[in-house]
Amino acid sequence: MHKVLINGQWREANSSGSFTAFNPATTEALGEQFPVSTWADIDEALDAAGAAFAELRAACPTKIADFLEGFATNLESNSEVIRTAANIETALPLDTRLVGELGRTCGQLRAAAAAVRDSSWRNATIDTGTNIRSYLAAIGPVAVFGPNNFPLAFGSVSGGDFVAAIAAGNPVIAKAHPLHPNTTRLLAEQAFDAATKAGLPAATVQLVYEMDYADGEKLAKDSRLAAIGFTGGRVGGLKLKEAADSVGKPIYLEMSSVNPVVILPGALAERSEAIADEFLTSCLMGVGQFCTNPGLVILIESVESRAFMGQVKSRFENSDVGTLFSEAGQKSLAASISKLTSAGAEIVCGANEGGGNGFSYANTLLQTTGEKFLSNVEAFQTEAFGNASLVVHAQDLGEIVSILQQLEGNLTGCVYSDTTGADDASYDSVAVELRQRVGRLINDKMPTGVAVCSAMNHGGPFPATASPGFTAVGMPGAIQRFAMLQCFDNVRPGRLPELLKDENRSKAWRCIDGKWTQENVAVATPA
Amino acid sequence: MHKVLINGQWREANSSGSFTAFNPATTEALGEQFPVSTWADIDEALDAAGAAFAELRAACPTKIADFLEGFATNLESNSEVIRTAANIETALPLDTRLVGELGRTCGQLRAAAAAVRDSSWRNATIDTGTNIRSYLAAIGPVAVFGPNNFPLAFGSVSGGDFVAAIAAGNPVIAKAHPLHPNTTRLLAEQAFDAATKAGLPAATVQLVYEMDYADGEKLAKDSRLAAIGFTGGRVGGLKLKEAADSVGKPIYLEMSSVNPVVILPGALAERSEAIADEFLTSCLMGVGQFCTNPGLVILIESVESRAFMGQVKSRFENSDVGTLFSEAGQKSLAASISKLTSAGAEIVCGANEGGGNGFSYANTLLQTTGEKFLSNVEAFQTEAFGNASLVVHAQDLGEIVSILQQLEGNLTGCVYSDTTGADDASYDSVAVELRQRVGRLINDKMPTGVAVCSAMNHGGPFPATASPGFTAVGMPGAIQRFAMLQCFDNVRPGRLPELLKDENRSKAWRCIDGKWTQENVAVATPA
Repeated sequence: MHKVLINGQWREANSSGSFTAFNPATTEALGEQFPVSTWADIDEALDAAGAAFAELRAACPTKIADFLEGFATNLESNSEVIRTAANIETALPLDTRLVGELGRTCGQLRAAAAAVRDSSWRNATIDTGTNIRSYLAAIGPVAVFGPNNFPLAFGSVSGGDFVAAIAAGNPVIAKAHPLHPNTTRLLAEQAFDAATKAGLPAATVQLVYEMDYADGEKLAKDSRLAAIGFTGGRVGGLKLKEAADSVGKPIYLEMSSVNPVVILPGALAERSEAIADEFLTSCLMGVGQFCTNPGLVILIESVESRAFMGQVKSRFENSDVGTLFSEAGQKSLAASISKLTSAGAEIVCGANEGGGNGFSYANTLLQTTGEKFLSNVEAFQTEAFGNASLVVHAQDLGEIVSILQQLEGNLTGCVYSDTTGADDASYDSVAVELRQRVGRLINDKMPTGVAVCSAMNHGGPFPATASPGFTAVGMPGAIQRFAMLQCFDNVRPGRLPELLKDENRSKAWRCIDGKWTQENVAVATPA
Repeated sequence: MHKVLINGQWREANSSGSFTAFNPATTEALGEQFPVSTWADIDEALDAAGAAFAELRAACPTKIADFLEGFATNLESNSEVIRTAANIETALPLDTRLVGELGRTCGQLRAAAAAVRDSSWRNATIDTGTNIRSYLAAIGPVAVFGPNNFPLAFGSVSGGDFVAAIAAGNPVIAKAHPLHPNTTRLLAEQAFDAATKAGLPAATVQLVYEMDYADGEKLAKDSRLAAIGFTGGRVGGLKLKEAADSVGKPIYLEMSSVNPVVILPGALAERSEAIADEFLTSCLMGVGQFCTNPGLVILIESVESRAFMGQVKSRFENSDVGTLFSEAGQKSLAASISKLTSAGAEIVCGANEGGGNGFSYANTLLQTTGEKFLSNVEAFQTEAFGNASLVVHAQDLGEIVSILQQLEGNLTGCVYSDTTGADDASYDSVAVELRQRVGRLINDKMPTGVAVCSAMNHGGPFPATASPGFTAVGMPGAIQRFAMLQCFDNVRPGRLPELLKDENRSKAWRCIDGKWTQENVAVATPA
């Protein structure tokens, strides 16, 4: 039985049982056993995290940056063993996707380290007239629940939420995703090694593999925990949110999204083959198991749209069927497709289980009319997590607008338009509706591919997330989620945090009396 | 019966009943009747707000700034009639407090207008490498529930939340506080006049006076409403929060706070009379009905602390007893004092109803020991909203630290220390604990007096608020609460919002590739 990492020790879990991961490509259970922790483990982790937080607050932030960079280096040094474990547990390709994902993970760690070093996430603000100064500061121990689909880049002990919480100066209690516990264990080993080398407190990074729902809710409500990051399905996310909300605790969730893609007539007339290629690639990337998977395509019924459907259909049918993460994932995809067809969606191709190695489901294309969609907007917005997409054929632009007005919040929304201006008026009608319902509005590009950059918004209105003002990807924004605003009013100069003193030794950007500057606070001229 | 303001019309309410306000100085009911709106009113207001929002999104933001400034001018022109109404409904002094509060309200409106004009709240961010750009944008219709204690500066149709929501470009549905409906009506008249003159949509500002709890929760859950601002008591706030949370809707609450003040021994030895004066002024200001009222004073038992208690006691006893806002407020204060004395707090002075004009309660000073406090931390943190404070006598510095470690989240925390350095080591022990539990850490000053400035944090950890990253006072921070993050990925140049185009016509501050600048995006040199 594998050991949990609590308070700086890899030790036997207090466990109520155990579980094993599966190799999705063979559907076979992997032998290694991982414990389901009881409350005793969580309780100890919470106490240890509290002590670590007290130490972290007193520590120099450069130690945290050192840790993030050291962790990235460790990941690179151990790339093969980590990727091999991830490949076995997820069936994600070892030498393509996992190489890319490991690179992304390291880049994200380094971007966070840079944000720690330049304090860009802190929003340092000084009002000289009142001598009031403020900045964002660490909030306290954070629990991170990672998703199934990015074992490294969104992993609970290596991914976006982990990195953001740590960068803000918070210890993290990570809960592995049960589909890739061994990968998570290897990542935690490297994280712990880097944390130790950087001189961070022993409980800065802790790991448990699993807990029961009741303990998850108890953890969410525990006063020793300051915040939560969760990426995953809506049902589990909302349960955790309810518990956190009940005690006024910040929780950042990234849940479901169908990522509407509107293809305007001019674009289709101009370049339908190219768009069909892009759609295929985006929809089948990672076997469609992306939070930004294009699950809903909306276009106007026409000769061109019917031709486009043919182009997409043949591409879907002629593409290999990939391996899904799990049997549950396969069943859940089947159930979602079934919900969509029950609502009246017509099968263009696919819609049956199997067809690839291990857990798999045929590349699936569904279609329906705008009228039908509008008659049952809830069912037709069902997220089919995997290699499947629903195309809605609207009668006209007005019907597209009506459909968009009925959409729930999504991470992304795309509009394809022609390059000569024929679609411009239609674009305006469509974009204004889509804009308010998505975090990221995209032109002429599919939604997969989430750049880690300062202007990214990987977020959006509920139910994509429950915090429409924040992004889960990209520094410094992602870090600011796990922070509290600390204001210093008339605090004596020697007692101010370094970043808020008159002298700006680190040359950080600060907003002084409404102007952003890297200068010192100007010495007041005597009256 | 007074009329509600819905969709640009002052019209008869759909009412299930009516209520009247009271003159707290005479305890007499004021004659005018105000309606309790049924769902029909709210429903209509929601539809109208949605239509107004669509118009507002297309409108030039300078119209919003014009409105905010025009409203401020209107308030100044109608100062006397508004202050007179507020004085009658709240007993706040006409020529001192209400003059100050009206000035604060106008200053806040103008500060928000400035933030609209310079886009400082939008956090415009451009990543040139990926051509991804983002900024904060309006979120949608906002409901504002104002508190009893600042009829103008926090009023639902004139105060901080209203101003912030409007500045972000959102229509507001205001719910008056039932203790000052007529003041709110007069404010809404001026707001509506200014909105009309500025050419804003008719339903930008709407007002109802009262609704029943069930309709309040229904409103919080309604999908046409995007966010909520609430200032008031914990019970009502948490009810509304539960409803909003259940549908993933942002709600910003400002609730209870006891605002701990630690007075270190050196400070007491050095200037106890001066501190006693400051404490008296702060504690009795507005008859203690301030969210930043110093309700909990912590010091170390000593000869000096006993002398200080005498100084404070005589000041409390020799000060006039002010008029509270309502009979309910008087009863609630009595109940809180009773809860504190039941827990073992000793009465130093006061603790009886009456003594002033109308609704009133004696200036009340309670005391207890650190040991007792620690034995019942929940009860001893009861907020006694009014002219009352609890002094805790700790045995030593260690006990102060233990007490601070048990405190819930508060808006503010103050530390008084001596000026020669004798308290410096103690300060460090105290400040580190207080820092994490309060939004604003203050030195050598009482907590009342919340400057409207960019670095202010009028906020704090739960239960002071439920959003520890945000302030309810001060621009641009307060505005950012009522916003969503909008990212533009590969969006064609002509389709970008003005603020995110390459050319920076308005010379707004933007963060381009990690550097804050007012310049244009540099034109890329051809490779």
